[in-house]
Amino acid sequence: MIIGGVKLEQITAFRGTQLRCKGWRQEALLRMLENVLENGENQKELVVYAALGKAARNWDAYHGIVEALRNIEEDETLVIQSGKPIGILKTHAFAPLVIMANCNIVGKWATSDYFYELQEKGLIMWGGLTAAAWQYIGSQGVIQGTYEIFAAIAEKHFNGSLAGKFILTAGLGGMGGAQPLAGVMVDAAILVVEMDEARVDKRISDGYLQKKTHDLDEALAWIEEAASKGESVSVGLVGNAADIYPELVKRDITPDIVTDQTSAHDLLYGYIPSNYTLDDVKRVRDIHPNKLEQDARASIALEVAAMLTFKNRGAIVFDNGNNIRTQAYEYGVKNAFEIDIFTEAYLRPLFSRAIGPFRWVALTGDENDIHTIDKYIIDHFKDNKIASNWISLANKYVPFQGLPARIGWFGHGERTQLALAVNEMVRNGTLSGPIAFSRDHLDAGAMTHPNIMTERMKDGSDAISDWPLLNAMLSCSSMADLATIHSGGGGYSGYMTSAGITLVADGTVEADIRLKHALDNDTSLGVLRYADAGYEESLDEIEKKGIRRIEL
Amino acid sequence: MIIGGVKLEQITAFRGTQLRCKGWRQEALLRMLENVLENGENQKELVVYAALGKAARNWDAYHGIVEALRNIEEDETLVIQSGKPIGILKTHAFAPLVIMANCNIVGKWATSDYFYELQEKGLIMWGGLTAAAWQYIGSQGVIQGTYEIFAAIAEKHFNGSLAGKFILTAGLGGMGGAQPLAGVMVDAAILVVEMDEARVDKRISDGYLQKKTHDLDEALAWIEEAASKGESVSVGLVGNAADIYPELVKRDITPDIVTDQTSAHDLLYGYIPSNYTLDDVKRVRDIHPNKLEQDARASIALEVAAMLTFKNRGAIVFDNGNNIRTQAYEYGVKNAFEIDIFTEAYLRPLFSRAIGPFRWVALTGDENDIHTIDKYIIDHFKDNKIASNWISLANKYVPFQGLPARIGWFGHGERTQLALAVNEMVRNGTLSGPIAFSRDHLDAGAMTHPNIMTERMKDGSDAISDWPLLNAMLSCSSMADLATIHSGGGGYSGYMTSAGITLVADGTVEADIRLKHALDNDTSLGVLRYADAGYEESLDEIEKKGIRRIEL
Ligand SMILES: NC(=O)c1ccc[n+]([C@@H]2O[C@H](COP(=O)([O-])OP(=O)(O)OC[C@H]3O[C@@H](n4cnc5c(N)ncnc54)[C@H](O)[C@@H]3O)[C@@H](O)[C@H]2O)c1
Ligand SMILES: NC(=O)c1ccc[n+]([C@@H]2O[C@H](COP(=O)([O-])OP(=O)(O)OC[C@H]3O[C@@H](n4cnc5c(N)ncnc54)[C@H](O)[C@@H]3O)[C@@H](O)[C@H]2O)c1
Repeated sequence: MIIGGVKLEQITAFRGTQLRCKGWRQEALLRMLENVLENGENQKELVVYAALGKAARNWDAYHGIVEALRNIEEDETLVIQSGKPIGILKTHAFAPLVIMANCNIVGKWATSDYFYELQEKGLIMWGGLTAAAWQYIGSQGVIQGTYEIFAAIAEKHFNGSLAGKFILTAGLGGMGGAQPLAGVMVDAAILVVEMDEARVDKRISDGYLQKKTHDLDEALAWIEEAASKGESVSVGLVGNAADIYPELVKRDITPDIVTDQTSAHDLLYGYIPSNYTLDDVKRVRDIHPNKLEQDARASIALEVAAMLTFKNRGAIVFDNGNNIRTQAYEYGVKNAFEIDIFTEAYLRPLFSRAIGPFRWVALTGDENDIHTIDKYIIDHFKDNKIASNWISLANKYVPFQGLPARIGWFGHGERTQLALAVNEMVRNGTLSGPIAFSRDHLDAGAMTHPNIMTERMKDGSDAISDWPLLNAMLSCSSMADLATIHSGGGGYSGYMTSAGITLVADGTVEADIRLKHALDNDTSLGVLRYADAGYEESLDEIEKKGIRRIEL
Repeated sequence: MIIGGVKLEQITAFRGTQLRCKGWRQEALLRMLENVLENGENQKELVVYAALGKAARNWDAYHGIVEALRNIEEDETLVIQSGKPIGILKTHAFAPLVIMANCNIVGKWATSDYFYELQEKGLIMWGGLTAAAWQYIGSQGVIQGTYEIFAAIAEKHFNGSLAGKFILTAGLGGMGGAQPLAGVMVDAAILVVEMDEARVDKRISDGYLQKKTHDLDEALAWIEEAASKGESVSVGLVGNAADIYPELVKRDITPDIVTDQTSAHDLLYGYIPSNYTLDDVKRVRDIHPNKLEQDARASIALEVAAMLTFKNRGAIVFDNGNNIRTQAYEYGVKNAFEIDIFTEAYLRPLFSRAIGPFRWVALTGDENDIHTIDKYIIDHFKDNKIASNWISLANKYVPFQGLPARIGWFGHGERTQLALAVNEMVRNGTLSGPIAFSRDHLDAGAMTHPNIMTERMKDGSDAISDWPLLNAMLSCSSMADLATIHSGGGGYSGYMTSAGITLVADGTVEADIRLKHALDNDTSLGVLRYADAGYEESLDEIEKKGIRRIEL
């Protein structure tokens, strides 16, 4: 790769047990940084995902960070502001090695226009959630997230099984591409509508999707056949969701579960209106962007109207976080928000107990480390069905990407238990080397996002962002190795704030102490946040686990 | 005092060397909390200043905090969300005892309407800067701030002296009440317009204001008489600034310096429109709040138009941080921002070196402790003219309020030097007991406030709030005893984010370590922030003081 006349090697995460830094904690964070680039979509631009979600402000910043990580002592802290390294400060050995704040803008200025202006000037960078925090581990996260939602729906509405059920959805993009795989993992018959045939083909060649057709009748026949036998199948239908959803309504066909994962949040680059080819989209975007936006919104309205009809006919319909309801609502579909958001409908009972997407990465690159931990979990967390189910399925379906990694939904206490066990395995040589722990920012105490994470909170505290800020401050006070605060950029500007945390299990006794404090406190705050909003599950968890809530 | 049928004692800060908590660090924070209430304006409502700036969410929250502070161990952390105690977590002895996040709301929702809605539901509280952070020490902070601005104006525009000069301003509230005293300290003739006669009387009985009148002619006669002789005088005129300022324009009278410190930032509770009595304000607010807002804004527009005319006629006119320009601008005074903000015009060269308002409080209540420290500063900081001038003046003019306290503008290295010397004096018994150190949130690395603190930054980074978030995270990582992140509420909703820090010098060796790390890092980040924006003074400071900036 050549950038500004300088030839750059393709960046991949360093493997093995040799250190380039002054300790494993520093080395671990450096490998996590390299790993998000290895797994990222456009390394030349330092973009990890979602078109703008970056790992560092620019290449100078990247090299400055690498240099800093190679040189800092274990009692120093590197400060990073929106992907740019600022300075190194003397702290202490139980302070984070890295603290970050990415893309935070004062409220009144937190708009996409101002964000783009600052980005243009090189003053800011959007870090997504896990991109700038060096925590992204590839597709596994989103496969697992989608799987978990389907599994929660099965539990809540279908006596625990989706065998014989028909899931309708749309979009096979970066995130949406996980849907057919997740559908098969829950034994369902899943139909995914996608306008871009190349995306359908890619998902087939990736092994994420089984069948492709341009013909709705053929697609439905495959779905019916599998469903009637209780077998799983995934079908990619080349077509427009704004046509197919209403057509099914017309034919009086009602799927069991309906959602959508087109990029409906973005009217210019994300959603293809009915009667447009892919080329039409490009052409109209150049010459008449307003028309494209209007047409996209009109088509979204048709699709959402069909979704509402499915709901009235008894289907389980939910918004998967792409703002499709807002777009339809703004077009005039006044009851669009009768569609549930997935977080509130399915994940809140879990978040109320701080059960959420915990992750670990094998820093030496040895896949056996992940398998060993998989086995440990299957042996020791029999009660945690969510985690143990997932781990068996992931073993079967999910290829490793970058440094071998695994995700699992664990709650308060469980995360610490697992991390301490892993640290012991690092210490006694059962594992080939250190393991890094992190989690998604979409976690109990870590995110305020009133249209996704914290919609319709019981007490109405949807937009209060004290919580993620407290979360990051608490991580800094609780021996985390890296702590970060992110806010939304691009189309998400002004819509969210979140916090991230990373810890390194390097087998030392100090790591035992760090893991215990940081992980316990991270999940405690999650439980306390939902308890404060009045969720029963949290109050129960507090009592069961002895979390020290202050009752007024 | 009786609240909800329960008789409450008037709260004052506990004095003496007896402890009610498990250590001096906890006891210190408890006394700081009590002290902001002792110094506050409306204890019954827990309001410290600025109509809404509170110390705790409500009385239950207050008592919960007190109880928690009395019980926590030195290796635990109390988490406070918008003035409400949430829980106690096990951290470690070099972690903060208290972390807080107050009034933070996600960007798109950060409006005054939404804030009031949340406040109404009891879900949030505005903490001002130092109110919720338990750092307010009474009027001295603002007297000194106002004095420093007048002194800087004298230096920059009037050959170092304001003797014989006429200052016009408005507002004798919690903060504004400091103006007449600061005016006299710089030898000027100062006229302060205030609608509420009770406030004028209070300032006279406090010794902050010399004369009162309802008659503009009499007021001007006093001003002229003093100014002509080069003598200082302070005059409180009962009247409305929206009438008086334009009236002076009409009479072709141009003061030398003009500003305003009414609560113009808040149209419902802060600014009294022309032709309204105090009772009118209450009545209209209840039945027709929109009308009150419109009338307030119209009156502000008249006042600001007059200020602009004064400026055109040669006066030094500045906004003292009450958002008055924004209100006028939104009403239609399109050139409102031709008025300078005091921070950019007078304080930025200081902030670029992290020179800012450092403070200390004698926790036993012994005034001699402050005098001893005053003497130490006068002996040891001869080069710091700003601090030593102030300390002599404060000794003469500023009565102690609540726990004896002092403010002084100190920069990187100086703060640590002073704090370590003080800690040594605590240790060896020169002082009667521990001292708490804090600073205003309006400090170099600690505030993003695009209309006040960070207006027209050299690189255009005005609204990026990564910095105060990093500041708080760094404080948590650097052994601060209390760290907090605040955002604006009421009329400031969506306009700012800041961070606060408190440290306790209890004479221990651990306190030496805490003070050194936390204070050095706090000011380092301040210098780094301005260096990042391109200020020469910061680059110079970095070189002189060996701050470890990462150069890209
Ligand atoms: N759970 C969450 O909160 C969460 C997580 C990830 C992604 N998302 C959101 O999900 C959406 C999808 O993410 P992505 O990364 O897959 O986006 P993407 O842009 O990579 O893919 C979107 C796909 O939808 C297809 N498409 C667009 N309009 C269509 C139409 N009318 N009919 C059929 N297909 C159409 C496009 O061809 C494209 O392949 C985004 O809005 C994203 O922000 C939410
Ligand atoms: N330097 C800073 O950044 C800084 C520091 C402190 C306060 N402030 C701001 O300064 C303002 C004043 O603070 P405060 O604590 O004194 O507020 P306050 O509400 O206690 O006092 C405001 C005073 O103004 C008077 N007033 C209102 N409208 C008037 C009018 N039209 N004419 C004459 N008098 C009028 C009121 O009667 C009241 O006494 C606030 O906006 C505050 O946020 C800024």
